Amino acid sequence: MIYFRSDYSLGAQPKVLDAISKTNMAHTDGYGEDVFSYECADLIKKLIDKPEANIHFMVGGTPTNTITIAAALKPYEGVISPDAGHIYVHETGSVEAHGHRVFAAPTPDGKLTPEAIEKVLLHHEDEHTVIPKMVYITHPTENGGIYTKAEMSAISQLCKEKGLYLYMDGARLGTALACADSDLTLKDIANLVDAFYIGGTKLGALFGEALVILKDEINDHFRYMVKRACALLAKGRLISIQLKALLEGESDPLDLESSLYMQLSKHENNLAKKLAEGLTKKGYELWLPQVTNQVFLILDNTIIEKLEKDFFFYTWCKYDETRSVIRLVTNWNSKEEEIQAILNAL
Amino acid sequence: MIYFRSDYSLGAQPKVLDAISKTNMAHTDGYGEDVFSYECADLIKKLIDKPEANIHFMVGGTPTNTITIAAALKPYEGVISPDAGHIYVHETGSVEAHGHRVFAAPTPDGKLTPEAIEKVLLHHEDEHTVIPKMVYITHPTENGGIYTKAEMSAISQLCKEKGLYLYMDGARLGTALACADSDLTLKDIANLVDAFYIGGTKLGALFGEALVILKDEINDHFRYMVKRACALLAKGRLISIQLKALLEGESDPLDLESSLYMQLSKHENNLAKKLAEGLTKKGYELWLPQVTNQVFLILDNTIIEKLEKDFFFYTWCKYDETRSVIRLVTNWNSKEEEIQAILNAL
Amino acid sequence: MIYFRSDYSLGAQPKVLDAISKTNMAHTDGYGEDVFSYECADLIKKLIDKPEANIHFMVGGTPTNTITIAAALKPYEGVISPDAGHIYVHETGSVEAHGHRVFAAPTPDGKLTPEAIEKVLLHHEDEHTVIPKMVYITHPTENGGIYTKAEMSAISQLCKEKGLYLYMDGARLGTALACADSDLTLKDIANLVDAFYIGGTKLGALFGEALVILKDEINDHFRYMVKRACALLAKGRLISIQLKALLEGESDPLDLESSLYMQLSKHENNLAKKLAEGLTKKGYELWLPQVTNQVFLILDNTIIEKLEKDFFFYTWCKYDETRSVIRLVTNWNSKEEEIQAILNAL
Amino acid sequence: MIYFRSDYSLGAQPKVLDAISKTNMAHTDGYGEDVFSYECADLIKKLIDKPEANIHFMVGGTPTNTITIAAALKPYEGVISPDAGHIYVHETGSVEAHGHRVFAAPTPDGKLTPEAIEKVLLHHEDEHTVIPKMVYITHPTENGGIYTKAEMSAISQLCKEKGLYLYMDGARLGTALACADSDLTLKDIANLVDAFYIGGTKLGALFGEALVILKDEINDHFRYMVKRACALLAKGRLISIQLKALLEGESDPLDLESSLYMQLSKHENNLAKKLAEGLTKKGYELWLPQVTNQVFLILDNTIIEKLEKDFFFYTWCKYDETRSVIRLVTNWNSKEEEIQAILNAL
Repeated sequence: MIYFRSDYSLGAQPKVLDAISKTNMAHTDGYGEDVFSYECADLIKKLIDKPEANIHFMVGGTPTNTITIAAALKPYEGVISPDAGHIYVHETGSVEAHGHRVFAAPTPDGKLTPEAIEKVLLHHEDEHTVIPKMVYITHPTENGGIYTKAEMSAISQLCKEKGLYLYMDGARLGTALACADSDLTLKDIANLVDAFYIGGTKLGALFGEALVILKDEINDHFRYMVKRACALLAKGRLISIQLKALLEGESDPLDLESSLYMQLSKHENNLAKKLAEGLTKKGYELWLPQVTNQVFLILDNTIIEKLEKDFFFYTWCKYDETRSVIRLVTNWNSKEEEIQAILNAL
Repeated sequence: MIYFRSDYSLGAQPKVLDAISKTNMAHTDGYGEDVFSYECADLIKKLIDKPEANIHFMVGGTPTNTITIAAALKPYEGVISPDAGHIYVHETGSVEAHGHRVFAAPTPDGKLTPEAIEKVLLHHEDEHTVIPKMVYITHPTENGGIYTKAEMSAISQLCKEKGLYLYMDGARLGTALACADSDLTLKDIANLVDAFYIGGTKLGALFGEALVILKDEINDHFRYMVKRACALLAKGRLISIQLKALLEGESDPLDLESSLYMQLSKHENNLAKKLAEGLTKKGYELWLPQVTNQVFLILDNTIIEKLEKDFFFYTWCKYDETRSVIRLVTNWNSKEEEIQAILNAL
Repeated sequence: MIYFRSDYSLGAQPKVLDAISKTNMAHTDGYGEDVFSYECADLIKKLIDKPEANIHFMVGGTPTNTITIAAALKPYEGVISPDAGHIYVHETGSVEAHGHRVFAAPTPDGKLTPEAIEKVLLHHEDEHTVIPKMVYITHPTENGGIYTKAEMSAISQLCKEKGLYLYMDGARLGTALACADSDLTLKDIANLVDAFYIGGTKLGALFGEALVILKDEINDHFRYMVKRACALLAKGRLISIQLKALLEGESDPLDLESSLYMQLSKHENNLAKKLAEGLTKKGYELWLPQVTNQVFLILDNTIIEKLEKDFFFYTWCKYDETRSVIRLVTNWNSKEEEIQAILNAL
Repeated sequence: MIYFRSDYSLGAQPKVLDAISKTNMAHTDGYGEDVFSYECADLIKKLIDKPEANIHFMVGGTPTNTITIAAALKPYEGVISPDAGHIYVHETGSVEAHGHRVFAAPTPDGKLTPEAIEKVLLHHEDEHTVIPKMVYITHPTENGGIYTKAEMSAISQLCKEKGLYLYMDGARLGTALACADSDLTLKDIANLVDAFYIGGTKLGALFGEALVILKDEINDHFRYMVKRACALLAKGRLISIQLKALLEGESDPLDLESSLYMQLSKHENNLAKKLAEGLTKKGYELWLPQVTNQVFLILDNTIIEKLEKDFFFYTWCKYDETRSVIRLVTNWNSKEEEIQAILNAL
């Protein structure tokens, strides 16, 4: 069986695991108050050129999203998400569990626009209505697309005008940054949003995400919010040790391009591109253009059934009466042979 | 100034106020555990022919909606509402405050259909997704329309098949029941839904709604849910005294048709009909057909501005660049002269 | 049967009901945005000499307590209450329903002290612990006692030093103010606390409390908090109309002493005093000294059983194996004969 | 510096880390739906002789406690905890964040008794009061003490009679089981409680706890509760891989005595015993008898200050004006020399 099901089906990239092993016998204080965490926070602040940023090391994407949103919003405020957004579709109502509405804005492809945001803003009239106060986006989107610098700037500009917080879910941020077509850098992001995270779980770590909060009012008592939400890891250093191993440049620690994180991301994108090109060449139709490490393919249901014997993947949604969309995801350890194998099988 | 702004701008219909005055000096236990409440509950059970129904007297519509939904749902379950539904649009996220998602199903006119419900059901896949478990409808709808018996039966049937609770918000239930075109009786409703309420606030009471719960699992520890939600009125009898005055038939207590509730509802519908006919006759365009006591009228913004000098009403939404929709509502005390006055002013 | 069970077993004092009747046919906007509410708010601000105070008219005590606490606290903060406090004992966890801890400080008699507060403050260490941020007291206490000006000043002083909000539940505030032994005036209270309410439900109104918020940060978006908590009454004017009838002085509107509120309170206190003195004279033992309109009496269980045939009252708690404490409450309509009747029966 | 501050200041015991490394390159489905998790669940069910038990692998103690409590309770129900209980003292109100009260029962030493539980039960009267519905205990207690089989049976018996769920927090369960004085086995626990967990974080794992739910109604939709609370780990297998490495017996997988878990626990207890005996011998006074791996020592504040130069530990609480209690914790890697070092330093 070959795995195209997700990018979190393996353990950690070996260098990441090594970093855990090497530091294993050090004693430190718990809950992220340790020298490893301070060092990694420092590295990230330098990478984004924001010495005043607040860095928190979180176990996974859902707690990062939910707690950041809960920390930013007052009880009567809500968050705007594309209808395909992870917080609306795959987090079992954890934002609502904290008492906040998710406004699901209709989008054709999971990408939010200023127009879609403005429509939601009309919802608010007075004290009988929820106030939309935050915008949640994923980069790359749930469907693997990316925002251009112009698109992100337009959203950021609107948010500033309307007094909305802007938060970016970066579960697979590396694949967006590593995308050849992308003109949006990590520093750009830090300049355009109020909070975002650099995802590790889906990019070579056992687990862990680095949350960057750029607005002090969101950061106020943030560790209390994390603990109250049951999400403060006792051996918190485990996250920062992994993220440092991923984010540190090879020769120069601050050379992000040469980091393991970017290398893995490029590898995933490259193989996904080969897969997409191979499929197109063979006459298959993609549901959406391939951009990062996710390929969405329209297939006859009968073919899907056959393919499932040798390959693991998600059937994403129904396309029409006889066809469905499947999702093929490359991971940091995907091999050219695996791409070839599925192309051959089709 | 003439009031077409809402049907809750006045105090109570005089007979309702009399009922409060007459019972004022009686001592009873608090929180709805009194003979007046037992009597009114008994009357309602007879009116719907359901001796096993559970009746709760609630202060207003929002607590009735929210607490019934909260009592029915487990933490990971959500409620399906038409996108125009009161719980989605005008209750400041009080359902979300209890930790539940409101799924806003797109509708052209605020009326839910089995198809719209089925689309939401696709949302649920597994433990990563919220389970839609309840359907919320308003009758009449927020836009004054009504469900036919066939429409309600189809929704009810789907809910039974899919294991969904069906709940009806009856803030203006009388005007739906009193509508000449309606073939859906109070007894039909009690047979088709799991819970509903008979609204008093918008139909002649100072305040108060009679909630009818027909599914015992929703009723389990319901009074705890009400108290925890801060919504148990100390002098609870005030609600049942008013509702009895409204619902009791004139000669025969069980003759609902002759009750004050139905008389006031018919009066409101009749005047709204005259208003709608007068407007149409004068060449004005209605946004939606008039059915109950709300008339939605498309007007030039310049005309609206002039009209506001002598009349109170809501500007409901933008229609196009130069026109808006205004809402004109008749109340239990609306006069023919007031209808004539606004027709003359246009 | 004679009622000593509670002070909310009757309807409204007739003058209060008259005020509702007289204004019944006026059209106003809903939700407390009406001239009656503005007038009453103005009256209260003058009575406490605080033009900048924020006044909200609330349906009952539990929503007033819960929503004020929820508006003041951040998610990770809690409120300190005497262990006998209404929010800890009789509100079904509605503060916890909003996500906040109630710290129940042990007290012998329901009266909080600076020492008891300081003990709770030790609870907070760091982000692993809830921050006590507010102090809740009842005046008169649940057991009918009152705070002196010196006691309240000491608590207020501590709260200021420690950055705690101070909130007073005034469900029966009139009886405390009207108490001959009290040196704490309404103006004093407004100077010493951050929020408090003047209770109507238990002092002659059908329902309704006037919440006074003196700290702007608690008042921020307060109406959103009320609506979200399902507690914004549609015909909100009903509360202010009643409270104005209660609070306005007879000749001079600002002469609180001559107001119906104070007259009723004095009447209740006087009869409670006669009852307490009569009981003591007959050799009965009080559980706590009578101060306001509640008398707590230790009785043999066999006597209690007999007494229940002609009188309604609460058995408050077990005293020892053969005796219990009963609570006798006077109300605005209690009669000398009723006091005499129960004294004769004992 | 020598570490006596906590038992989670190191990484994982090397065999545990090896188990992660060995399985690192296997592809599996996420969120604990993998063969490693099924195998470990199977092992645990056999160890407790309960094939019908439900096993969930959780990231840490706080999510395990909070989510189990939230899954068991209805909104208006609360949980009884000793006043020293972790959920009351060190989890930042996460139970309250889910809307439930924690009833903190006073205890001299963190150990709950049937009498203390019964006192809390008096709190519940009717719908105005929270229903205590669950009992939370820690074994060993927060202060390192243990429950005997007779004590646990008495609590269990009371819970059955009163319809209360019984839940045991086993953050350091191994040290209780490994305690020479303990007559309470793992199988006993599984027979006496409704849910409990076997803690890994504080006993040699990087992180992770095995939650055992023995009551199906608590287990209903449990994975939804975990995901909604942001606590479902993407690479869920990491927890079960570690717990299997800890719990599996050396020769016979089912011989718990020979497991790494019990070996580490015995080691910790032995060194704590040597430390306690050494201190007593030198004339120092313990605050509480040493039972498991925590030693609570009363020291002059001046001595504490000196000791802090070479040793890391917690100052637990004030003892009197000149003395405090410090906590010394042994861990799976503590050395005889370290014990000797601190004894020498005193």
